[in-house]
Amino acid sequence: MNKLLAEFIGTFWLVLGGCGSAALAAAFPEASNTLGIGFMGVAFAFGLTVLTMAYTVGPISGGHFNPAVTFGLWAGGRFPSKDIAGYVIAQVLGAVVASAILFIIVSGKAGFTGVGGFASNGYGELSPGKFSMMSALITEVVMTAAFLFIIMGATHKDTPAGFAPIAIGLALTLIHLISIPVTNTSVNPARSTGVALFAQTAALSQLWLFWVAPIVGGILGAVLFRVVKSDKA
Amino acid sequence: MNKLLAEFIGTFWLVLGGCGSAALAAAFPEASNTLGIGFMGVAFAFGLTVLTMAYTVGPISGGHFNPAVTFGLWAGGRFPSKDIAGYVIAQVLGAVVASAILFIIVSGKAGFTGVGGFASNGYGELSPGKFSMMSALITEVVMTAAFLFIIMGATHKDTPAGFAPIAIGLALTLIHLISIPVTNTSVNPARSTGVALFAQTAALSQLWLFWVAPIVGGILGAVLFRVVKSDKA
Amino acid sequence: MNKLLAEFIGTFWLVLGGCGSAALAAAFPEASNTLGIGFMGVAFAFGLTVLTMAYTVGPISGGHFNPAVTFGLWAGGRFPSKDIAGYVIAQVLGAVVASAILFIIVSGKAGFTGVGGFASNGYGELSPGKFSMMSALITEVVMTAAFLFIIMGATHKDTPAGFAPIAIGLALTLIHLISIPVTNTSVNPARSTGVALFAQTAALSQLWLFWVAPIVGGILGAVLFRVVKSDKA
Amino acid sequence: MNKLLAEFIGTFWLVLGGCGSAALAAAFPEASNTLGIGFMGVAFAFGLTVLTMAYTVGPISGGHFNPAVTFGLWAGGRFPSKDIAGYVIAQVLGAVVASAILFIIVSGKAGFTGVGGFASNGYGELSPGKFSMMSALITEVVMTAAFLFIIMGATHKDTPAGFAPIAIGLALTLIHLISIPVTNTSVNPARSTGVALFAQTAALSQLWLFWVAPIVGGILGAVLFRVVKSDKA
Repeated sequence: MNKLLAEFIGTFWLVLGGCGSAALAAAFPEASNTLGIGFMGVAFAFGLTVLTMAYTVGPISGGHFNPAVTFGLWAGGRFPSKDIAGYVIAQVLGAVVASAILFIIVSGKAGFTGVGGFASNGYGELSPGKFSMMSALITEVVMTAAFLFIIMGATHKDTPAGFAPIAIGLALTLIHLISIPVTNTSVNPARSTGVALFAQTAALSQLWLFWVAPIVGGILGAVLFRVVKSDKA
Repeated sequence: MNKLLAEFIGTFWLVLGGCGSAALAAAFPEASNTLGIGFMGVAFAFGLTVLTMAYTVGPISGGHFNPAVTFGLWAGGRFPSKDIAGYVIAQVLGAVVASAILFIIVSGKAGFTGVGGFASNGYGELSPGKFSMMSALITEVVMTAAFLFIIMGATHKDTPAGFAPIAIGLALTLIHLISIPVTNTSVNPARSTGVALFAQTAALSQLWLFWVAPIVGGILGAVLFRVVKSDKA
Repeated sequence: MNKLLAEFIGTFWLVLGGCGSAALAAAFPEASNTLGIGFMGVAFAFGLTVLTMAYTVGPISGGHFNPAVTFGLWAGGRFPSKDIAGYVIAQVLGAVVASAILFIIVSGKAGFTGVGGFASNGYGELSPGKFSMMSALITEVVMTAAFLFIIMGATHKDTPAGFAPIAIGLALTLIHLISIPVTNTSVNPARSTGVALFAQTAALSQLWLFWVAPIVGGILGAVLFRVVKSDKA
Repeated sequence: MNKLLAEFIGTFWLVLGGCGSAALAAAFPEASNTLGIGFMGVAFAFGLTVLTMAYTVGPISGGHFNPAVTFGLWAGGRFPSKDIAGYVIAQVLGAVVASAILFIIVSGKAGFTGVGGFASNGYGELSPGKFSMMSALITEVVMTAAFLFIIMGATHKDTPAGFAPIAIGLALTLIHLISIPVTNTSVNPARSTGVALFAQTAALSQLWLFWVAPIVGGILGAVLFRVVKSDKA
């Protein structure tokens, strides 16, 4: 139960911090954006949610905060299959509650007329840069594969202990620096689900891709690490 | 006495660095802001004040620099109630002296006509993005709760030693990346008080919220960590 | 073989992340760039590719991801000459495959008309700021010399263990913060080769400089470190 | 001699990286600056020069790269008076050589008509934001005092070993985030001297302030740390 609470809170923080910074601070003022944090600030926000919570509840739950990480670590031989369902449910619940609280905060802005895309993920017309479904698929698979490859390595016993949250958090920052224009960057089905429920766009109709691609990518990345490492267990 | 001096200096640095970067460098030149550091630079400045001073005087006073942290750690069973008053007074004094020095620096700018908001915190008309009092309250409570939750975890004996100032400092950066548009980000009553005394706006009339919300949030976050950790002491 | 796979993947990630962030996210939207990550975001992306992969496959291959690093470490007495060819081939292959995948992603953007410079390196007309071949040569030699000097020191037994990926990754970020306007920053012949194959400019005709200068600089920097350190082996 | 070479190279890197990023990349393209790194990128560049070189030659010379640090550590009881002159000369020489190389690189830009301010420091008419001499004096004294206070603490035996270059490097980043608009940020007489020799402004006539204020501030900060720490030796 402590583990599930930790995953709930960690994913809550990931969505509130990452999607919150995108919805509240990426463009400020909205018209000219001379002060806003832009895609780079959002990239750091997502990464720092993981860095901070991994140092906080990592010793409790392992600090996944992401169904693709949970499935990937299972494929990598680091997580028992019987715990997958609980973790994923806790993560999705954390993402949904964070999205609801973010919705309340955002709706308190003077002249509020709706949340718009609400930092949701998408392809085609819903891609920030209008990238195709194929570009989106490749991007999400490759980015999540790299993410799990890094997670497997940074938490391996051959790597100096204690640095993993820095490597993993900044890997998520890096992934966002690359791919926000393509899909608004998911690599995390829970994060995609939370905000899609509140978005005023057709984000829900594209949600399947942000479950399939990150989980497939995550499994590929973790397995690839075991191959490169010649790691049998 | 060493502890109180350390808290005085640490909070002085937090306000001079965080509010100073906001007042001096966020928009440069003020008209077009093509070179200024924006909200993202201010977010890093606040976080780095804590990161740097926690490595410097953390071994002396614990490195709170913030009444909400002091109250939170007390609620978390990590700080004796008898020392709260001294810490809070030292923190507020540090913030006031930093604000005074910043006022002198700012007033030396050619064509100086006043400090304006002076990086103070506010809601409604005084919110950078004109967010309501309710949005401000929720934001400050949730952000400070997350801050104390992270502080409790990052300094716990189960977490690798030495990394806490990185996790805690960058948590403050993250909090600013999210919430500057809402309240100009406080999560720290001392910081809010120092600059409110010099602001040319009605910031003082809203100061109550930036004492109540961070302290309530800080206590909630610290207690929540003990629940998640099943930590009795 | 594990080492070569590690170098292939690490260099793949360096090019996909560094050049990918440049091609996809530096300017967004392209016309006004109010949200894009700019040169600073690209600088962090390159650095974080090395930081993340050094914590991941550093224990396997040493984490070079760059022929100039491989030659430099050989000159520094840290790498056997018999392994140079394999490492360099793996690095170039990783860079080429990353460039191909990036090409596919980029070409899925609505209204795609070509990749243009594709984050390739150049001087004269192909320099972002139109810097001369002499400026480019000096810049690439000095930057790569500093890079290897730092790598030799950060991985030396006298330096606290575990921090090397942070120092080396952020050194690459720093190098990009300085020199993107001059050559678009190479300091890495594999990175230059990968994207030059796809660029729609004359980048291939200038590729020689981005092999010669980084390798010469890398050897100089590594030897200089041994002199400063009075390090015989 | 190894120590002096290390200080020469470290200060060379600080000036080439910090002032180089300012001169080459702060505004790009110069007219609109849609891609340049701005004051924030320059702040990170300065900090990362120290972070990277402290991990590299810190074990050799202590990694001062700055006469104000050398004088401050002497006042703090951490550096012998007999070595001050050699360190300061090596630092100034490193800064001058870096400025010369930067001058050659910058002059290779198409349409080059002069280096202008060349990232030099100044007050009054030579302050980026036209701040008075009094604002400049206070800023440089206080910033350097904080810098030495942090250096004394981050390298103290009570602080976890290995993290000092992170704390000290990012302290320099923070100092730049605050004070570039006031004086273009010195806190380092060698850095100020190097570029002033090449600047096309009256920077040399103001150089006295950037020797006096940082050294006075550095001594104050180091002594203050000993008071706060009750540190007799």
